[in-house]
Amino acid sequence: MMEFMSRWETDAPGRLQRAAVELFLERGFDQTTVAEIAARAGLTERTFFRYFSDKREVLFSGSKALEETLVQAIREAPPALAPIDVAGEAVVAVADLFEGRHEQVRLRSRIVDSHSELQERELIKMASLRSSLAGGLRARGVAEQTAAMAADLGIAVFSNAFQRWVAGSADRTFSAIAREALGELKAVAAGS
Amino acid sequence: MMEFMSRWETDAPGRLQRAAVELFLERGFDQTTVAEIAARAGLTERTFFRYFSDKREVLFSGSKALEETLVQAIREAPPALAPIDVAGEAVVAVADLFEGRHEQVRLRSRIVDSHSELQERELIKMASLRSSLAGGLRARGVAEQTAAMAADLGIAVFSNAFQRWVAGSADRTFSAIAREALGELKAVAAGS
Repeated sequence: MMEFMSRWETDAPGRLQRAAVELFLERGFDQTTVAEIAARAGLTERTFFRYFSDKREVLFSGSKALEETLVQAIREAPPALAPIDVAGEAVVAVADLFEGRHEQVRLRSRIVDSHSELQERELIKMASLRSSLAGGLRARGVAEQTAAMAADLGIAVFSNAFQRWVAGSADRTFSAIAREALGELKAVAAGS
Repeated sequence: MMEFMSRWETDAPGRLQRAAVELFLERGFDQTTVAEIAARAGLTERTFFRYFSDKREVLFSGSKALEETLVQAIREAPPALAPIDVAGEAVVAVADLFEGRHEQVRLRSRIVDSHSELQERELIKMASLRSSLAGGLRARGVAEQTAAMAADLGIAVFSNAFQRWVAGSADRTFSAIAREALGELKAVAAGS
């Protein structure tokens, strides 16, 4: 029984996320309750609220790890790297969070894209990522206006790469697509 | 009396906007009612609702003109212009909407920046502008991915230029700052 319980409790957040995504796709986001998500995952509502503040957060809990990964990559980038490449390498670094999760991320995006309240939440998370990127660049000594601009370009690389990765096949890695998007950004900015 | 009435009715939306900005700054956005805005402007609530759906829209009614100006400038840009410069020229073109209104726009920004619900609304309007920019570029025959990237870069130019213009003195024109921001974007993307 103990063994059963501990297996049962293993990766509760992941099970709740998978259950939530299934239900949001089956019934719609608005029509799904926390009680139903917990029941589908074979867990209690109390367990749900140990990990997520509400059903919306099930879809956005990954953004903290995304922000931390970006900021750490900025901090660890070689000192001589130009701000645009620091931002670009930071975007490439978030690939670690995505690889092997293509289908899961794709379904999550489908839910977010089909619901205006969730799209708004996504915009807010992106604005927060942008601030973290700019702050990380300033901490490296990049001048404020340059840091703001490079952060916007980093977010452009991220969002374009993310859209393409999600829309494409699972074979193409996020890091390859991010490097491609960074190259395209440079080409477009140069007047191609 | 007719003459008085017609003067009274002149520029009702502008008077409502100025009254709203005054009250939002004096009392806070949440503490201000439509009735108070109408009273301060010397107009009725009914007149208020002829122009604005709610008190929030008083701060965002300019975004339609912004979008139209951007889209028209994209349509009218010389055919040979690179997508980044089409987007850049479109941003420069919106200067017409800002010149002579520095103080008004500055106060409006101060209100929006101090209230999370209004900041969210601003993010949504920017996302909508971005879509219009991308759509305008695609209508010129720009490939989808290039259009998406150039639209993101155009929004980066706009938002950086807008922040600088609002924070700076009224002497500097938005168009000059937008051209400067476009030049900086190109320099940052090229690795400066």
